[in-house]
This record gives sequence, structure tokens and C-alpha cells, in this order.
Amino acid sequence: MKIAVFCSGNGSNFQAIADSVKAGDIKADISVMVCDNPKAFAIERAKKLGIETFVTSLKDHKSRQDFEKAILAELEVRKIELVVLAGFMKVLSADFIAKYKNRIINIHPALLPSFAGTDGIGDAIKYGVKATGVTVHFVDAGVDTGPIILQDAVEVRPDDTHDSLAERIHKIEHQLYPRVVKLFVEGRIKIEGRVVKIT
Amino acid sequence: MKIAVFCSGNGSNFQAIADSVKAGDIKADISVMVCDNPKAFAIERAKKLGIETFVTSLKDHKSRQDFEKAILAELEVRKIELVVLAGFMKVLSADFIAKYKNRIINIHPALLPSFAGTDGIGDAIKYGVKATGVTVHFVDAGVDTGPIILQDAVEVRPDDTHDSLAERIHKIEHQLYPRVVKLFVEGRIKIEGRVVKIT
Repeated sequence: MKIAVFCSGNGSNFQAIADSVKAGDIKADISVMVCDNPKAFAIERAKKLGIETFVTSLKDHKSRQDFEKAILAELEVRKIELVVLAGFMKVLSADFIAKYKNRIINIHPALLPSFAGTDGIGDAIKYGVKATGVTVHFVDAGVDTGPIILQDAVEVRPDDTHDSLAERIHKIEHQLYPRVVKLFVEGRIKIEGRVVKIT
Repeated sequence: MKIAVFCSGNGSNFQAIADSVKAGDIKADISVMVCDNPKAFAIERAKKLGIETFVTSLKDHKSRQDFEKAILAELEVRKIELVVLAGFMKVLSADFIAKYKNRIINIHPALLPSFAGTDGIGDAIKYGVKATGVTVHFVDAGVDTGPIILQDAVEVRPDDTHDSLAERIHKIEHQLYPRVVKLFVEGRIKIEGRVVKIT
């Protein structure tokens, strides 16, 4: 199976998945790392990993539609079967998502449906929850609303700051995301309505 | 400290808290079990535990206001300092809550703010989350929106039914609720804005 990983920044989840592929745990190829930010550290990681990159910014294009067209062309040429969003900071259009229906997955640093949106960690701290976590889900046309594949809880400690909580959440992400990619590649993820069954 | 526990049904959380009091773990008295349902099994439990009951139905009164007045009078006579809602199926008015501000606690069978309302377990299953849990929180004028004291996560398993998940959630409730009552009685719960700090 051919995978594209989409990044905008650090790319630590990209790294975790690439490491699992290298270790032979995930039997698939990361054909390309798509990146909308030419300064992203994820590009350095791709070079070191020997993974090809496709770097294109929204501002290189006349419209968001053209930006997405360029990415879609790249995915089609490479016959990509799974799109893994790993800190990709652009929201994909409904048209893009429809083309890869149930083939785009995302990771979110909270237990969805709580704390959807751009600051899942900060919003959880502000609300005062004592348990938060990580969610991997299929991407649908909403923001963080798609069918949930796996979740793992993380305790919020009394002395937690944004940084200390983020550190524990990222550790869980780096375990959970490769597990989900592996399950997908092995064909073990079934969607029934909006409920995901792992077989 | 004098505690009132409010029940409408089975009263298994009432039992768990009463057992912790009896074991000397919670150093307080359950002065009264308030019940709005004369057929509730919680009344049998109270009898066996030797705990006095105050049973009054909404339909025994001309209005909800009168119903609450009767309960408030009972609490005032007994100098109640903490109200523990344990499966009490009536929503208390803002006036009632204001009189016991930050002295009414509730337990909810989900990880709030996800799945507030009357069927936290069923709603979580329908949404397809893989992690849910239990929340103990202060009661404010909203439904399940008050400051969160403690939470504990529960995994949703692929073969879970409402019953099997409820059973694991109730087990967690019976541990978590006595822990929170003990913390409250010991004065170890502080509210800062909407965030609860355990000291």
C-alpha cells in the first residue's frame, strides 16, 4: 500500500510512522511527504529518511482549489491509497475529502468529541478536565467530527502546564498513530455507520 | 460534616459512599438520604444502613418550587453542608443550586464535556468513541457543565453493549465517588475559576 503523509511543522508523528515502516511493523511504503510549509522541520526528517517530498504552499497558487488540485495530481500519479494527516495545518475541502473517502486519517490531541479545533490541549486545560487524550479518526467534511478509529486517555495532573501535558500527549500519539496505520494497511478497520470496528 | 445523598433509583453510589463512611475512610455523617421516588431501591438500602430518609415526590407538591422548598427545609434543619447527587433524576433549579453553591456534587457516566445529558453511556456508544469514563463535578446552573473534580477513563471494547459498558463504568463510579466525597470532607478541593485543584 502506498501512503502519503501530510505535514506542516515538526513532523514527529511522520517520524514515528516512518520508523514503524522501516522496522517492518507497517508493511507499506510512504511514497511521499506532502508539506505546505517550506520551512517545516518535517522536510529535514524526510531527507534523512530518504522519503520524497512534495512541497507546495497555498500562496504559490491562485486559489485554494488550485493548491488542492496540485496535491491531488501528485497523489494520483503516485497511486496513493491512504492519506495520513500529521500536523497538517490546512483544512481540506469537502471535494478533496470525497475523492479519498474513508482514506484520510487525522490525529487530534484530545478525546473527541471534546475539544475539537486548533488547540485541543489548551482548551482541555482551560475547561479543567482531569482526563484528556488522543484520538485518531477518519476525516469527514466537518472539523474533527469523523468516525473515531482509536483513542487513548491521558491524565491531566494538578501541576500540568500546556508544555508538560503536550509532552505526555505527544508520547501517546507516537504510539497510537503507527498502530492505526498498521491496522489500516492490514485491512482490519471497518466503518459501520459512524462506528469503527477493528477486526 | 453532615452530608445528604439524593437518589431516585438503585442507589449503588449511595451504597458505595455509605460503605466508605462506615469503614471510617470518610469522616462524616450521611444525615439523610433524600429520595423523590417512593419505589426506589435506595430506600431499602438506607433502611439496612440505618440512614434516615426523606421521601417526597414532585407530584406530592403544587409546584416544582414547593417540592424544592420541602427538600431545602429538610437540609436546613439538618444543617447539611454537602449534597451528593447519586442518580437523582430531577434537575435542581438555579435558586436551589445558588443556596448550596459549590456544595452540590454530581456523578456522570461519561468524560464531560462529552456526552452530557441523560444517556451518557448510550450516546458514547452511538458516537463510536473508543474511550469514555466517569466524571464527578460540582453542579452549576447548566446541565453537566460545572467544574470537574475528578475523572477516570474507561475503554470502550469492540464487543461492548450498553449493559457491558455500563457495568465497567459503574465499577469505576463506586471507586471515584467515595474518593471525591473524602477529598471534599477533608477540605482538599479548591475551585479556581472553573478549574478544580486537589491539594
